[in-house]
Amino acid sequence: MAVYTEVAEGDLAAFLSRYGVGRLLSYKGIAEGVENSNFLVRTDGGTFILTLYEKRVDRNDLPFFIGLLQHLAARGLSCPLPVEPREGSTLGELAGRPAALFTFLEGMWTRRPSAEHCRDVGRALADLHAKSADFELVRPNALSVDGWRPLFEGCGDDADKVSDGLSLEIATELAELESRWPTDLPGGVIHADLFPDNVFFLSGELSGLIDFYFACNDILAYDLAICLCAWCFEVDGAFNVTKGRAMIEGYDAVRPLSDRELEALPLLARGASLRFLLTRLYDWIHIPDTSFVTKKDPREYLRKNRFHRGVASVADYGFRRQGPSA
Amino acid sequence: MAVYTEVAEGDLAAFLSRYGVGRLLSYKGIAEGVENSNFLVRTDGGTFILTLYEKRVDRNDLPFFIGLLQHLAARGLSCPLPVEPREGSTLGELAGRPAALFTFLEGMWTRRPSAEHCRDVGRALADLHAKSADFELVRPNALSVDGWRPLFEGCGDDADKVSDGLSLEIATELAELESRWPTDLPGGVIHADLFPDNVFFLSGELSGLIDFYFACNDILAYDLAICLCAWCFEVDGAFNVTKGRAMIEGYDAVRPLSDRELEALPLLARGASLRFLLTRLYDWIHIPDTSFVTKKDPREYLRKNRFHRGVASVADYGFRRQGPSA
Repeated sequence: MAVYTEVAEGDLAAFLSRYGVGRLLSYKGIAEGVENSNFLVRTDGGTFILTLYEKRVDRNDLPFFIGLLQHLAARGLSCPLPVEPREGSTLGELAGRPAALFTFLEGMWTRRPSAEHCRDVGRALADLHAKSADFELVRPNALSVDGWRPLFEGCGDDADKVSDGLSLEIATELAELESRWPTDLPGGVIHADLFPDNVFFLSGELSGLIDFYFACNDILAYDLAICLCAWCFEVDGAFNVTKGRAMIEGYDAVRPLSDRELEALPLLARGASLRFLLTRLYDWIHIPDTSFVTKKDPREYLRKNRFHRGVASVADYGFRRQGPSA
Repeated sequence: MAVYTEVAEGDLAAFLSRYGVGRLLSYKGIAEGVENSNFLVRTDGGTFILTLYEKRVDRNDLPFFIGLLQHLAARGLSCPLPVEPREGSTLGELAGRPAALFTFLEGMWTRRPSAEHCRDVGRALADLHAKSADFELVRPNALSVDGWRPLFEGCGDDADKVSDGLSLEIATELAELESRWPTDLPGGVIHADLFPDNVFFLSGELSGLIDFYFACNDILAYDLAICLCAWCFEVDGAFNVTKGRAMIEGYDAVRPLSDRELEALPLLARGASLRFLLTRLYDWIHIPDTSFVTKKDPREYLRKNRFHRGVASVADYGFRRQGPSA
């Protein structure tokens, strides 16, 4: 959550002149997004978000991200819409970085998700999957099952310093997930990072989704598994079956889940929790304590992974298919 | 430049309900202000800045800061105006901190000040001094001449690690300033931190002043001396007499400077440069390198102090009184 790049007014005014949004009135660096620099920009024409893509984002991926937002917004999904310049590419350059201007989305992320929030998120996620079905660009998921072992190896022997026996526990789980990871489930574009801070609500209604910079192609139900991990656990670590049921029902109502997807969900959720355990563990080990980045505790996702390992079926998430199964 | 405090939507909505600014639409932490947490808040009623006062700001000073902004805004100075709640105190509480809501000021600070900018800043500074003349609250300047020795002593023997011989050079300068510091110059409320990032311009015109959290009572011309230090040196360290002249002329046109003030200006500028040298040196020594705070090089103000020591009169700043002196 930081602004990495300084932008001079003259440079920004020149950048904006391509867009026909009127005179620049103000701009403020905002604490949003961990990979990029974001500014809230006000002009005669309205309020916008300016994103400067920092080094952690691969420039080759930008057409996928920009194109996906255009694709989804055109189909009525509420997400930041890249503003089209009067001429030239949607992706410009500012302060030596690739940059794009986006419409501003009103709404706030919820710090205290309720079951109704979870139902709305399930619906929105399924809507995203449905609306991206005909999106033509492809971006492989570098943080899916094939990416976990390199991350784990990058942690070396330091995992046990975080938690006793953690290294063996991860090795065992990783081996099982690698051998059992499904290859025949419906795939498509997933958000892959739909945590509460990336979902806006306004007056109790879901008003938009943001931060698509982990979006990629992967198993659709894996995205739902990520959301179960991100939304349905309480602060004390307990899984809330009311929220789990609401989220899966919300998803299923918009994009019906097949029996195979439902059966796979506990395994996918083990994978999702292992993925966040590994990235957090990697950061925990490699980012110095005094760095300005707030490091997240990897053990939160160890506990979530253990929970999912104990799940026998989606009934343990609170979900039961109504009537005859699909 | 950071957001230190997390604010929950429900808490913010409850806080805003006192103000009659309509429904909360969005809020973003912004990278502005070093002492406080600031949020850009949008409601049905408009755009606002929400400030949460963090620990570094003494709560006892808040009535002075809030009252000063109200006083100045009422007299037509463009600065953030504290929004009055429908009932109760202008200063509220949010997320366990004192908090206030301010009008949003359009405009941008300039990264490349010109002589015209300097003239406008001089005029605005004099305007601030004139308009605060009848402000009744008083806040002593903890960072004026009496505060410098404790700062210097707090640096211990580490000054010489920053620059060879620095400790002796500061000790000599400090002793001279303490013995010669004027006590008979006109005083009043000064901004005390009117650096380029605290002055907004819009379409080439000065549109407002912000960040009054160093404001205090002190010698008025000392505030001009601070601005000479903050605005009129080039990146290569050279003093720009065109900017110096423009700034002093701008000030003098709004609030005429007496001969005694003009004579004292070089000494006041030595004091101003020593003050920023000392606070930067203190931070340089005491803040760990890996902290998220960007430390500013104290040697920049050592060079400025040396320049002012070599100044014989305000003529060296480019200023000459037109016609017979006052």
